[in-house]
Amino acid sequence: MPMRIERDLHMATGNGETSYTKNSRIQEKVMFQIKPVLEEATRAAYSALLPQTMVVADLGCSSGPNTLRFVSEVIGIIARHCKEHDRRHDYPQLQFFLNDLPGNDFNNLFLLIQQFNKSMARNHKGEAAEALPPCYISGLPGSFYTRIFPSESVHLFHSLFSVHWHSQASEQLKDTKNKCLDIYITKNMPPSMVKLFQQQFEKDFSLFLKLRYEELVSGGQMVLTFIGRKHEDVFTGESNHLYGLLAQSLKSLVDEGLVEKEKLESFYLPIYSPSVGEVEAIVKQVGLFNMNHVKVFEINWDPYGDSEGDDVHDSIRSGENVAKCLRAVMEPLVASQFGEHILDKLFKEYARRVAKHLENEKTKHAILVLSIEKAIIHV
Amino acid sequence: MPMRIERDLHMATGNGETSYTKNSRIQEKVMFQIKPVLEEATRAAYSALLPQTMVVADLGCSSGPNTLRFVSEVIGIIARHCKEHDRRHDYPQLQFFLNDLPGNDFNNLFLLIQQFNKSMARNHKGEAAEALPPCYISGLPGSFYTRIFPSESVHLFHSLFSVHWHSQASEQLKDTKNKCLDIYITKNMPPSMVKLFQQQFEKDFSLFLKLRYEELVSGGQMVLTFIGRKHEDVFTGESNHLYGLLAQSLKSLVDEGLVEKEKLESFYLPIYSPSVGEVEAIVKQVGLFNMNHVKVFEINWDPYGDSEGDDVHDSIRSGENVAKCLRAVMEPLVASQFGEHILDKLFKEYARRVAKHLENEKTKHAILVLSIEKAIIHV
Repeated sequence: MPMRIERDLHMATGNGETSYTKNSRIQEKVMFQIKPVLEEATRAAYSALLPQTMVVADLGCSSGPNTLRFVSEVIGIIARHCKEHDRRHDYPQLQFFLNDLPGNDFNNLFLLIQQFNKSMARNHKGEAAEALPPCYISGLPGSFYTRIFPSESVHLFHSLFSVHWHSQASEQLKDTKNKCLDIYITKNMPPSMVKLFQQQFEKDFSLFLKLRYEELVSGGQMVLTFIGRKHEDVFTGESNHLYGLLAQSLKSLVDEGLVEKEKLESFYLPIYSPSVGEVEAIVKQVGLFNMNHVKVFEINWDPYGDSEGDDVHDSIRSGENVAKCLRAVMEPLVASQFGEHILDKLFKEYARRVAKHLENEKTKHAILVLSIEKAIIHV
Repeated sequence: MPMRIERDLHMATGNGETSYTKNSRIQEKVMFQIKPVLEEATRAAYSALLPQTMVVADLGCSSGPNTLRFVSEVIGIIARHCKEHDRRHDYPQLQFFLNDLPGNDFNNLFLLIQQFNKSMARNHKGEAAEALPPCYISGLPGSFYTRIFPSESVHLFHSLFSVHWHSQASEQLKDTKNKCLDIYITKNMPPSMVKLFQQQFEKDFSLFLKLRYEELVSGGQMVLTFIGRKHEDVFTGESNHLYGLLAQSLKSLVDEGLVEKEKLESFYLPIYSPSVGEVEAIVKQVGLFNMNHVKVFEINWDPYGDSEGDDVHDSIRSGENVAKCLRAVMEPLVASQFGEHILDKLFKEYARRVAKHLENEKTKHAILVLSIEKAIIHV
């Protein structure tokens, strides 16, 4: 069965040990890091237009605890802003759209929303009605590489760890890959193939920007956070190691006869980790947005490795943590290509290889955060 | 476990023989009947305000083929209206919100939406872009007995077969019921208890109207269709038979020792089938809407019994059809009170009793359709 992003790209479901819900600490930590950027963009979007109803969309929302953390952040920012500007009797209404592909577990998300609404009501019981702005949350299924909103209807877009995914499994990449066993860019990959990864991202990201431009109101803001890379050289990306070790783990399963070589030959990760320079160039080339902020920051591979230094305290443990983390994100994609039966073995092997890698080098994720705005057109 | 409407009130899930998806022909037929009313309200809402984006909400949308039939109806009406009024180059954008309780199977609904979008694109491939108005569909989880939309943000509300449900399982009704084995109003029920059914509906429907008034734009329209009754006398309602036969079936399971008597004593259907007079009185008493249209029409109990006359062709078959139909709607509620193990036996017994009833009398559902508008306030 060929890879189909709309079907296979979603986080691991449920609440079990290997679920995304239980393994989304990286996302949580990154969310914490980007708070100031989100705060600035949210305030700017609100104060530029003072809408009666502020429409906020989370693209690639998934279905875990971070989804509602974002909602709760925005509510808090608007409440603070209004209090500071003496508008606490004049809160906007907040209308949230949580978007993801139709394969996302929206049923689970909607139960979380129900709990969220109840706990909001409970926490603010007895307080004045104006304690928090009223909020209305819906789910919006569909690919953000298509139009998903009416024209000029959204004030703030947010996306965490989603825009690095390709819009589709590129046939050209699959064909070019041929006998290659790599699943992402490596030092030895032919430049023509590397270029296909880059071109797909350029094409997708340009389209993404154009679509969101149509959907944003003038003065609307967009905060995008995704896996990037620190240096301009595409061959030295931090993700290359992360995905390279997964490729090596798959290869060892091929050697053991557990995975067919042909299946690995036709598989790759439909993903790209761009540099700041590449992202800036695309935003400039598309020409529809003002750049507010762009930067890269680092975060440990191990979501529970909170130390700042260059040593890894317990590499075995860290290997397992990283493996759980990647499994939560990649499981449906990997299972669809190779079958569910290899998952435990594959990620055990992966954990071992990550541990070994971390003994030599404490590699980190490079997180790229970008904040841009649709210029207000003065008529 | 006490009955919890937010958890137990949803249609039977999946695609199997007893699912709502396979047993929603009554709803389909009613949808066909109310088309002219929906058409008039949709045109009125659009032409009163000519919004750039028209917001349309379906309350209690469920997750079957009828959900998207409604969406498709509205798209068709707007397209026709614009063509007739020479506005085909100036279509509004249609933004749909499909609302139901969080227990509804939104995952299934979102897959249906995906198919729907694809088939829309396929059917209109090659046609001019203006062939149909662009439409954006989201899911909105939550009880419509709470605020679910920002103020003055909706142009058209629609609800099919949902507003007859109570907002909650009334403790008072449960307490009053005491040793009574009826689950809905019967000829022998004490008037004080009948009054509790009526009062809960009055309270719920008044609240519903007030909430929707806040959410509708001035000039906005609302079309509500639900199970009602033909005559003013509450003791002669058509639903009394339908639910009365279910109570009798449950009683026979008590006699057989399959259902505990205490469980039946504490169970009732949180539902009410009002008359036109009752509905008119509440709308008038609430005083926020203009009445466009209200009427009752009849439809055969048997969703496949399309004959107009008073005879039932094959009462055994009809009994089975009616049982499937009611099971699709009531299964989660009944299962939560009595356990899943009684379902097959219960609805077999029910089918038998319905067949026997239909041999004597071809009873029909009384469907009430109400179309009201929020008056335009001229400032």
